[in-house]
Amino acid sequence: MEPTVRHSPADLTEFAAAVLEAVGAPREHAATTAGILVAADLRGRTGHGLIRLPSYVARIRAGGLSAETTTTVLHETPVSAQIDGANGLGQVVMSHATDLAIQKAATSGLAWVGTTRSNHAGAAGLYVERAADLGLVGIYLAVANANGMPPWGGTDPILGTNPLAIGIPRTGGHPFILDIATTNASHGTIKVAARDGSTMPEGWVVDHDGMPITDPARADEGHLVPMGGYKGTGLTIAIGLLAGVVNGAAFGRDVVDQRTDLTTPTNTGQSIIVLRPDLFGDRDTVLTELGRQLDDIRSSGTPDGSPVRLPGDEAARVRHDNELNGIEMPDNLAQELARLAADLGVPSPFDEQEQS
Amino acid sequence: MEPTVRHSPADLTEFAAAVLEAVGAPREHAATTAGILVAADLRGRTGHGLIRLPSYVARIRAGGLSAETTTTVLHETPVSAQIDGANGLGQVVMSHATDLAIQKAATSGLAWVGTTRSNHAGAAGLYVERAADLGLVGIYLAVANANGMPPWGGTDPILGTNPLAIGIPRTGGHPFILDIATTNASHGTIKVAARDGSTMPEGWVVDHDGMPITDPARADEGHLVPMGGYKGTGLTIAIGLLAGVVNGAAFGRDVVDQRTDLTTPTNTGQSIIVLRPDLFGDRDTVLTELGRQLDDIRSSGTPDGSPVRLPGDEAARVRHDNELNGIEMPDNLAQELARLAADLGVPSPFDEQEQS
Repeated sequence: MEPTVRHSPADLTEFAAAVLEAVGAPREHAATTAGILVAADLRGRTGHGLIRLPSYVARIRAGGLSAETTTTVLHETPVSAQIDGANGLGQVVMSHATDLAIQKAATSGLAWVGTTRSNHAGAAGLYVERAADLGLVGIYLAVANANGMPPWGGTDPILGTNPLAIGIPRTGGHPFILDIATTNASHGTIKVAARDGSTMPEGWVVDHDGMPITDPARADEGHLVPMGGYKGTGLTIAIGLLAGVVNGAAFGRDVVDQRTDLTTPTNTGQSIIVLRPDLFGDRDTVLTELGRQLDDIRSSGTPDGSPVRLPGDEAARVRHDNELNGIEMPDNLAQELARLAADLGVPSPFDEQEQS
Repeated sequence: MEPTVRHSPADLTEFAAAVLEAVGAPREHAATTAGILVAADLRGRTGHGLIRLPSYVARIRAGGLSAETTTTVLHETPVSAQIDGANGLGQVVMSHATDLAIQKAATSGLAWVGTTRSNHAGAAGLYVERAADLGLVGIYLAVANANGMPPWGGTDPILGTNPLAIGIPRTGGHPFILDIATTNASHGTIKVAARDGSTMPEGWVVDHDGMPITDPARADEGHLVPMGGYKGTGLTIAIGLLAGVVNGAAFGRDVVDQRTDLTTPTNTGQSIIVLRPDLFGDRDTVLTELGRQLDDIRSSGTPDGSPVRLPGDEAARVRHDNELNGIEMPDNLAQELARLAADLGVPSPFDEQEQS
């Protein structure tokens, strides 16, 4: 299980782009999608990294996902837009949505951009990080691509892990990036546990009698557990209504399980809100004060005197290490990707690792 | 403990307004504040109802809260405003903020209004309900008026219960109103448990060794527990940065504990975001689909076949009952309010109850 080879982000991105091109994605869309997948691995958010590539390829080959991505703005005002992704690659659709929201916020101060007929777009935090790196607040909401949780007090698993990300800029350090599923564990996290052969902690998945399931291979037999009980399913529903229903995208029973159904378009919906914080005061003063408050929390006490870890800190640390030393790919994922590459006739950076 | 008298909302509002007038609030501000306090009781959100009136009066008398409320717009664009509440009544400041956000969203489609130098404004859900009743999405964020929770992994309780409310309109029923503290229990909920002499469930408060405290009178000896572990403190921080720091209002160590410090202005910050859902499609279609999806969740399965309870349902049920039959006031609160009234020379609707 211990990986020995670390790959440069550039090599992994080139590889993933070549794979996507091999199944029909135009160069630009393949590069965008590959870059966002590898950006997730780079930050240690491996559940949304290259682990997703085989399922994207399978979905494109089965006809459930369009390798070519045409984005069309359906509704637009100076503070809003709705983008029709025409069932293309989610990373391409959400990149367009994020850039448009940033552009509108730069002019109007505030923007809300939604997507319809989009697809799985990877790590939520990356889109708000893009805003935060420009000194903007970003809030991202998405409907997850599978259900697996009943509403609080209910028995029918018609809700998903609908993620929420909030990015807040600051001076004097990397931005605050909160990136959470509204369940205690996301499908991505469970996928990583299954790949690594590790046990899930109690509280991630329960069976139909409410008893914990800790074997990730058996996760589908049970239900996901919402964060904070009824509050978590309330948040999940709110996110689903705003990112899904308001955008004319799927929610509830209409969600297509992308793990088991490779052919039906998912009609995924996402929303991104971008705010220019200088609407409420001098920009430098606000960004400096945000930094001061975050540093104050970080240096508040812990049992062993180490700094408090803020949302975004671990991702920044892992990214720094991975940029210096390359990204580790677990052997079984590397082998799966090597097989995928061989199948598509694409050069793979994983061949040597397999031979070692 | 069993209350026997139920009071009309109009009588309670008139009473609370008279109390606030007696300590110097102008008639209009007293009426606004009283109406919002009673609206919380009406919906069963008793932690933000008349239970708060004695502390408001004590704070006004001690000089920490201004009975006269002057609101000034400091920064303004077509999609945003920041309102300086000049340490006046939070309900008056947030009413102004909410109405301004609604007005701006009506014109621009989207608005974000923040407050600075505001105060405790009562039940978060009421402000987004005001938007939702007009067919608008509302999102409310506030910095709580006391700390009591360390950051995840930390020991220093420099965070609070920072609430989040999301209101989503629909056709064919009352709106979806999520109104949650980012801790498992809010100070208001604990205050109600203390008043009622009931035991707190495990998971609300822990002592400094992480062991549960279940006596609400001992709650101050421990720490509040975040909803969903690190996700909850992440949300609390995000809300505090957006509602507090971005508005130049207090957050973290700068938060004034309004329970113990009656004289220092709290510099409370709140934010409300209002969205016109027809930015993303035909208004009637969107509102109808929101209703259909909510009804679909409500009618999904439960163990006993009863409907699933959605955020806002219980408040709507209690409100309906209280509007028909009057609002119950627990004896000990009624007695406290009767003493307050006697002290201020204000007629009290609780006199008869005391004599019975």
